[in-house]
Amino acid sequence: MSKHENQSLISALHDCMAACNHCYDSCLKEDDVKMMAECIRLDRECADICGFFEQALLRDTPFKAELAKVCAEICEACGKECEKHDHDHCQECAKACFNCAKECRKVA
Amino acid sequence: MSKHENQSLISALHDCMAACNHCYDSCLKEDDVKMMAECIRLDRECADICGFFEQALLRDTPFKAELAKVCAEICEACGKECEKHDHDHCQECAKACFNCAKECRKVA
Amino acid sequence: MSKHENQSLISALHDCMAACNHCYDSCLKEDDVKMMAECIRLDRECADICGFFEQALLRDTPFKAELAKVCAEICEACGKECEKHDHDHCQECAKACFNCAKECRKVA
Amino acid sequence: MSKHENQSLISALHDCMAACNHCYDSCLKEDDVKMMAECIRLDRECADICGFFEQALLRDTPFKAELAKVCAEICEACGKECEKHDHDHCQECAKACFNCAKECRKVA
Repeated sequence: MSKHENQSLISALHDCMAACNHCYDSCLKEDDVKMMAECIRLDRECADICGFFEQALLRDTPFKAELAKVCAEICEACGKECEKHDHDHCQECAKACFNCAKECRKVA
Repeated sequence: MSKHENQSLISALHDCMAACNHCYDSCLKEDDVKMMAECIRLDRECADICGFFEQALLRDTPFKAELAKVCAEICEACGKECEKHDHDHCQECAKACFNCAKECRKVA
Repeated sequence: MSKHENQSLISALHDCMAACNHCYDSCLKEDDVKMMAECIRLDRECADICGFFEQALLRDTPFKAELAKVCAEICEACGKECEKHDHDHCQECAKACFNCAKECRKVA
Repeated sequence: MSKHENQSLISALHDCMAACNHCYDSCLKEDDVKMMAECIRLDRECADICGFFEQALLRDTPFKAELAKVCAEICEACGKECEKHDHDHCQECAKACFNCAKECRKVA
């Protein structure tokens, strides 16, 4: 069943979507929001594509490889921005992004 | 942290979204697709709102109660349609929908 | 046809979604991002629900009234935040939000 | 402004999203739903990615080229399926898909 076949990818997408939404929310509450503007922007792009791709996988999309490729690219860009910032939510988000990019690359 | 505060709701939303996408995909592969048309339609509506609400919760949306209300209504409608059908994917989806509706009602 | 029946609502949702995404993007580029944090947050919530509801209408969702209600509430909240700020993108967004809320209320 | 720069692409995405949602809804109401199963599936995939990409463009996403590429691929696949069927909604959807794919290719 498709659900099990892609389980590690599905988990990575879900963790990354959750981390990005949490980082986005936390960045908006930081004192120096301006410094976090690019992080906020990329968190949203990344959360959106991960949530999108996870749902697509769960309905056995015929476009797994194509979506994995674009998702990996967005996760990498978001991870690179997040890792520049010392906040725990940014560091955790970077880890989730890089892990998700790695899982996406396996099927891209 | 918001993530933990809503953990059982978040899990219920995610399980429901996954069950609805799986049921949708499986219905499209059944022999009698016509009999499943309403199930296909409601599975998509339900998957979409559950995925939407889960993401919104993970970014600490100010509209938790409002979204929980509409999500509960859609989950109940989807569960009622799914439980009419004997397929395992429909029966499992109905359970996930009713559980999610119950969790949504707690915060609506 | 459903598309025409709801045409003024669909247009209002689309204009609001576009205005919110533009305001979100513009707020992230402002000098004083911190002052715009709540606007950024509500722009995203509002863009997401308007885009969601527009798509649902275009597929003749059975949940028109329920979605219209939550969408109106989110549009009003976003409009009230946007109208506090002098930027053109905020003022235009507030107008689009209030117009969309009004259209939603007609079918809620 | 980004909104105008991409206007023909944004219009093509929106038209394609609307046509796919209308075709999806109409296919579910046809007598021979089974024959339309693949059309239903691809209509949803295509509507979802077009709606996603349109929103991303409206917030000046840094991932325009990457999203345009995957969107073009999904639009082409959906158009090829739709054009097999004689229903007006399928033929109109095929046209919208091919036009959208063409617009996406210009920026991919």
